[in-house]
Amino acid sequence: MQACNRAIIARMESPVPLIPQLGAHLVAAGGKRLRPLLTLAASRLCGYQSTPENQRHVGLAACVEFIHTATLLHDDVVDESNLRRGLASANAVFGNKASVLVGDFLFARSFQLMTADGSLKVMAILSDASATIAEGEVLQMVTQNDLSTPVERYLEVIHGKTAALFAAACRVGAVVADRPEVEEVALDRFGTNLGMAFQLVDDALDYAADQQVLGKTVGDDMREGKITLPVLAAYEAGSPEDRAFWERVIEKGEQTEADLPHALALIEKTGAIATTIARAQVYAAEAVEALSIFPDSELRRLMTETVQYTVDRAR
Amino acid sequence: MQACNRAIIARMESPVPLIPQLGAHLVAAGGKRLRPLLTLAASRLCGYQSTPENQRHVGLAACVEFIHTATLLHDDVVDESNLRRGLASANAVFGNKASVLVGDFLFARSFQLMTADGSLKVMAILSDASATIAEGEVLQMVTQNDLSTPVERYLEVIHGKTAALFAAACRVGAVVADRPEVEEVALDRFGTNLGMAFQLVDDALDYAADQQVLGKTVGDDMREGKITLPVLAAYEAGSPEDRAFWERVIEKGEQTEADLPHALALIEKTGAIATTIARAQVYAAEAVEALSIFPDSELRRLMTETVQYTVDRAR
Repeated sequence: MQACNRAIIARMESPVPLIPQLGAHLVAAGGKRLRPLLTLAASRLCGYQSTPENQRHVGLAACVEFIHTATLLHDDVVDESNLRRGLASANAVFGNKASVLVGDFLFARSFQLMTADGSLKVMAILSDASATIAEGEVLQMVTQNDLSTPVERYLEVIHGKTAALFAAACRVGAVVADRPEVEEVALDRFGTNLGMAFQLVDDALDYAADQQVLGKTVGDDMREGKITLPVLAAYEAGSPEDRAFWERVIEKGEQTEADLPHALALIEKTGAIATTIARAQVYAAEAVEALSIFPDSELRRLMTETVQYTVDRAR
Repeated sequence: MQACNRAIIARMESPVPLIPQLGAHLVAAGGKRLRPLLTLAASRLCGYQSTPENQRHVGLAACVEFIHTATLLHDDVVDESNLRRGLASANAVFGNKASVLVGDFLFARSFQLMTADGSLKVMAILSDASATIAEGEVLQMVTQNDLSTPVERYLEVIHGKTAALFAAACRVGAVVADRPEVEEVALDRFGTNLGMAFQLVDDALDYAADQQVLGKTVGDDMREGKITLPVLAAYEAGSPEDRAFWERVIEKGEQTEADLPHALALIEKTGAIATTIARAQVYAAEAVEALSIFPDSELRRLMTETVQYTVDRAR
């Protein structure tokens, strides 16, 4: 992982100083580096031998993080967010223009990293994931403020915006280890289901955790009129009066300061968080199951624990 | 070119309807399709045999147009433009969010098209060009409002934002034809110099043409405080009073309605357009010269005429 962090910083370089400056801001903001970790873990689970000459997994882990960072930069612009991981977001510090353009640069750089890796199979996986992410983001934008969004549509959104890259990050780990298709598919399935669980919990936390724990403002999703499962579940299970409340704040976007506490109370009353976490558990179980084709090992146990930790964040 | 237009429309498809909708808006807005035409022309100049099975040049031409369209979508967001090619820009119709996200999608799709083509060499050329474009755009943003920007820096900006993709569009034409390095280099040089000439003339037209001819608002660059050669030349050659004017409108961004006519008069008085066009002519001559390694042909003459037309637009 240290090698991956070094690769990330080294490949953020550019003759245009603002690019590494903004890059340093993102690196300093930390982040869990969950996606590149998945690439490293998946490659090792598949028996990839890391040697000083054999560092493809590191380059691809950095590549995955660049794709993710590019989407974060653009997300913050699109969502007009001012906080990211508890710190001022890049767009708040450097402006929206810089975030759009540096996001484009990181995206292009990720494709340079893939090209340097040289595997057409890897390129297909990561370019497909990139297109799916963008489709998921557009779909999320289209469903914004729309309480009639079916749960299935919401699941499509989080599959696109989150699970697709988790899946690709895992899958390329199997590809660099040159393992049979069945292991690729298993790791893809692991990543997809982990990503779904992760995003469901994230969406639950937006109506539950406090800002310090989450590194973002509680109620962001509500303020943006974002359609997430907690809202859909609370709306579905709500009284006519509750529904009128959600229609005003989510569909019409008319919000006052008293609305967030009331929303949290309705979410609590209708068990919407529990509904959301229960769904996340189903995906989590599927992720763990996907690993069953690999022999038991410390690494496999660690990956299983990661899945459980992802869901337990919400408690 | 019809095959290329069909490929562009076909590959704009997505299960998320907003993506082809916004795509159709861009296709309807027309545009000269100059960059994909360069790929087609370059491949034919290098003797590429187009057959029903052999359509790599078409896929790559579409790919080049997707990269270009993605940058246009993001440019219009960054520049807060409301017009593009004389019609309402995508961000004005669909909003900034849609433009950012659909731009990301088109960029990802361009990488899918490259992956489908399968040549690592092509991928390196186009992913390098994509990174250079983003660097050029960031550099342009950094130099905004700064009249002390050296002309060399301005040339770096237009090399990045325009000439790099012209060069790559031409170069991949030689690559698909599987021609010796010397032809690749010649076409790269042709594209680079044509791109530089093209952007210089574009920047001149922003202080000269009327909106109908140009398909954009005259004075856009001034309103945005963009540093272009016409302004740098007029500032350099201006009286102390002229310089104070430019400092107010470009550096401080304090503009009134009377400023545009005055700016155009100063540009005229100092011969700044002529200075800009003269530089474009130098690049144009270099572009024509680059083609001299190819035997005389109707296509070569057409490409030479395209260079001259690019510069003559400004008259």
